[in-house]
Amino acid sequence: MYELHFAAPMAGAILCTLNARHDSAMVSVLLSHSEAKVIFVDYQLLEIARRALDLLVESGREPPILVLVADSDSPSPSETYEYEGLLAMGTNGFEIRRPISEWDPISINYTSGTTSRPKGVVYSHRGAYLNTLATVLLHGMGAMPVYLWTVPMFHCNGWCLIWGMAAQGGTSICLRKVTPSGIFDNIVQHGVTHMGGAPTVLNMIVNSPVSDQKPLPHRVEVMTGGSPPPPQVLFKMEEMGFGVNHLYGLTETYGPGTYCTWKPEWDSLPLNERSKIKARQGVHHLGLDEVDIKNPETMESVPPDGKTIGEIMFRGNTVMSGYLKDSKATEEAFRGGWFHSGDLAVKHADNYIEIKDRLKDIIISGGENISTVEVETVLYSHPAVLEAAVVARPDDHWGQTPCAFVKLKDGFDVSHREIIEFCREHLPHYMAPKTVIFQDIPKTSTGKIQKFILRERAKALGSAISKI
Amino acid sequence: MYELHFAAPMAGAILCTLNARHDSAMVSVLLSHSEAKVIFVDYQLLEIARRALDLLVESGREPPILVLVADSDSPSPSETYEYEGLLAMGTNGFEIRRPISEWDPISINYTSGTTSRPKGVVYSHRGAYLNTLATVLLHGMGAMPVYLWTVPMFHCNGWCLIWGMAAQGGTSICLRKVTPSGIFDNIVQHGVTHMGGAPTVLNMIVNSPVSDQKPLPHRVEVMTGGSPPPPQVLFKMEEMGFGVNHLYGLTETYGPGTYCTWKPEWDSLPLNERSKIKARQGVHHLGLDEVDIKNPETMESVPPDGKTIGEIMFRGNTVMSGYLKDSKATEEAFRGGWFHSGDLAVKHADNYIEIKDRLKDIIISGGENISTVEVETVLYSHPAVLEAAVVARPDDHWGQTPCAFVKLKDGFDVSHREIIEFCREHLPHYMAPKTVIFQDIPKTSTGKIQKFILRERAKALGSAISKI
Repeated sequence: MYELHFAAPMAGAILCTLNARHDSAMVSVLLSHSEAKVIFVDYQLLEIARRALDLLVESGREPPILVLVADSDSPSPSETYEYEGLLAMGTNGFEIRRPISEWDPISINYTSGTTSRPKGVVYSHRGAYLNTLATVLLHGMGAMPVYLWTVPMFHCNGWCLIWGMAAQGGTSICLRKVTPSGIFDNIVQHGVTHMGGAPTVLNMIVNSPVSDQKPLPHRVEVMTGGSPPPPQVLFKMEEMGFGVNHLYGLTETYGPGTYCTWKPEWDSLPLNERSKIKARQGVHHLGLDEVDIKNPETMESVPPDGKTIGEIMFRGNTVMSGYLKDSKATEEAFRGGWFHSGDLAVKHADNYIEIKDRLKDIIISGGENISTVEVETVLYSHPAVLEAAVVARPDDHWGQTPCAFVKLKDGFDVSHREIIEFCREHLPHYMAPKTVIFQDIPKTSTGKIQKFILRERAKALGSAISKI
Repeated sequence: MYELHFAAPMAGAILCTLNARHDSAMVSVLLSHSEAKVIFVDYQLLEIARRALDLLVESGREPPILVLVADSDSPSPSETYEYEGLLAMGTNGFEIRRPISEWDPISINYTSGTTSRPKGVVYSHRGAYLNTLATVLLHGMGAMPVYLWTVPMFHCNGWCLIWGMAAQGGTSICLRKVTPSGIFDNIVQHGVTHMGGAPTVLNMIVNSPVSDQKPLPHRVEVMTGGSPPPPQVLFKMEEMGFGVNHLYGLTETYGPGTYCTWKPEWDSLPLNERSKIKARQGVHHLGLDEVDIKNPETMESVPPDGKTIGEIMFRGNTVMSGYLKDSKATEEAFRGGWFHSGDLAVKHADNYIEIKDRLKDIIISGGENISTVEVETVLYSHPAVLEAAVVARPDDHWGQTPCAFVKLKDGFDVSHREIIEFCREHLPHYMAPKTVIFQDIPKTSTGKIQKFILRERAKALGSAISKI
């Protein structure tokens, strides 16, 4: 995938990386929608790809050419085209087919599909170039960084860091499976300087068995996105020698769009304060024109008071060109001339932004807005909680009340009463969950919690009958 | 000047920084040519500016508004407009006047004037933005660098680092006068991480009295340009704790265009080898499309053999838009679709380029090309030589022969015979200087040796009559 990020554009083709966890049905839909001409398939995913191609043939469509990518431990190739063999057939005289316009597409990224109809987010050469430089700069990467990939390369072209690592002469360390021992072993063996880390990866690191851990040879910078690191996780990561940095963006912003630029004067604050500041999504990076928090109805900016909630909106070169073959969704996303993120946030006095919730996640209880992110932050600060997600549960009296799904750490046991009590101690009463359910939290392959599944489960519980 | 690099473009104006060493006549010519509306003048240069404005009035032109920039030690302001007072009159409600097109000019930089007619090099917003990011990256600057300015800010907008320091949240340390003790004191006091350094500045550092030197608190990265650091200078700089990096560019390329990206495998080479490699101008940075060495007649690329000499040519976003009001010079500079640098170079097998000479500096002796840079490198390796410059002297028999101007270090005394002998030991005989003259080397305010003056002097010596 790394090599093809250069080969495909240089051949005048457009990239379209697919999520490695899709099933054959989804793969066939995306191949058809993207009109892919060639599919490169890792040997471990060959059966899924073959079945997807069969599905295309069955529906009367022409399937793309399949090129098998073998590995040292794969069985001998049985496909017509095999990647290394194909490379050997190439000539050095091939002339690079450069884009005619810098706005020409370089890549299509299908959003992770928490909604029913996946959208193909189109990236331009111009946007990819600028987001690459900006992302390298916000990682604070000097020459020749060593990057450990826990961020999937199929996700926003690896936050544009596939190109970024080449730009900086970096070394990429790839893992077939992300495990704590794999992370520690590779950091030590290869002198990793930077890594990405979804919240689940940070969780995995801090809760890993001591036998899997190794002392770090130097400070390793971890960029986390998706949701901010809770204080306990931040503290343990720092104690282990990681520097934790927080960035924010969407597929539609080529991955990273803002980051919480750290100010030296914050270093001396107590952990809880630092954690609170680090949870902010911060300021836009150098490749973006502007990020703002606006009232989506009036398109007016909210005041920088840290209180007034609006929607995060982006504009600039590193915002997608649009959704492939979906002008309606594109227009909707760009109404008023700004890209609407669907995330609700406030703006602080120093212009740092802070997410309060997803537009569709916010809970309205007795007329009060409840930020599920704030409730989750409190849940994560409970020593027994490994993972937590809060959604709305229909309620006869309040309309909605918070329902918490919680996964406990191994060896811990607490009651739902204790969890609710704990939340009431740290939050206004109306914000504390009325329902607590202990179970595994469903997540996408990129580590995003699938709240739509939880919302269905909360709904299935039926209306709560609240005692006033 | 730093503040105005943001204020002027935000007001919709175009920057035009003038060399602080120009006299009133030159300043009046440039004010007239650039059609400047306002001139901001440091109090130390007030008399020169006033006289320049008088000259404009005398020739019937409207002079620009003069704004005095005072300092803590300046006499109380006597001008109508004074910078800080003017700022105090501003309103917070001022709306930024953004460029209409990213190709709109942001700055005009007059070339240092070694030729009679100064050319106004036009920079665009787009080019300045891209060169800023590329220059930050090639300096290996992380967040919040501390930069010591020995590169004048009027020179290519400080290699675009005025904007670059803001981009990275950096601290700028400015010196009214560049002295060894000033350099060492400020490094220690402010924790300088990066600095620029013309060859003369490196010379100044390594030859400074021990009493002026201070142990460095950490490795300080020095970017040098103009000419490569000779082995002795490189060795002493490294011994003192500086990292010396070599970049190359012209006013027409917004300052830095290429740099000698260092490969780790070169670290273990002996000093002379490292110095030889570090002397290369290297590869183009991330903001440029391409740099190539071409035959200016045929526009064909030279082979990467390290031998065939051609002219360095650039193309891409960080090449100037053109010369102000001089379409003839612009067309000439861009003939064949590439910017012609006037520098002669070879391309090595790894595509690193290496300058052999300025097109107009090359000496042709008995039909052989002599690179004055190569002769100068040998001269600099002589322990008694502080500065050296080689130009052509007319010769009855050979057409031209090399004539060396040499400045010796304090306390050293060698004869011109010894110098010639030394060169003959390290160079083919025909390349060794036939004439050696001991005197101060004339330089521009940016530390560039003024070879056109030396060529005049060599010419004034009359033709040498060579014995064969």
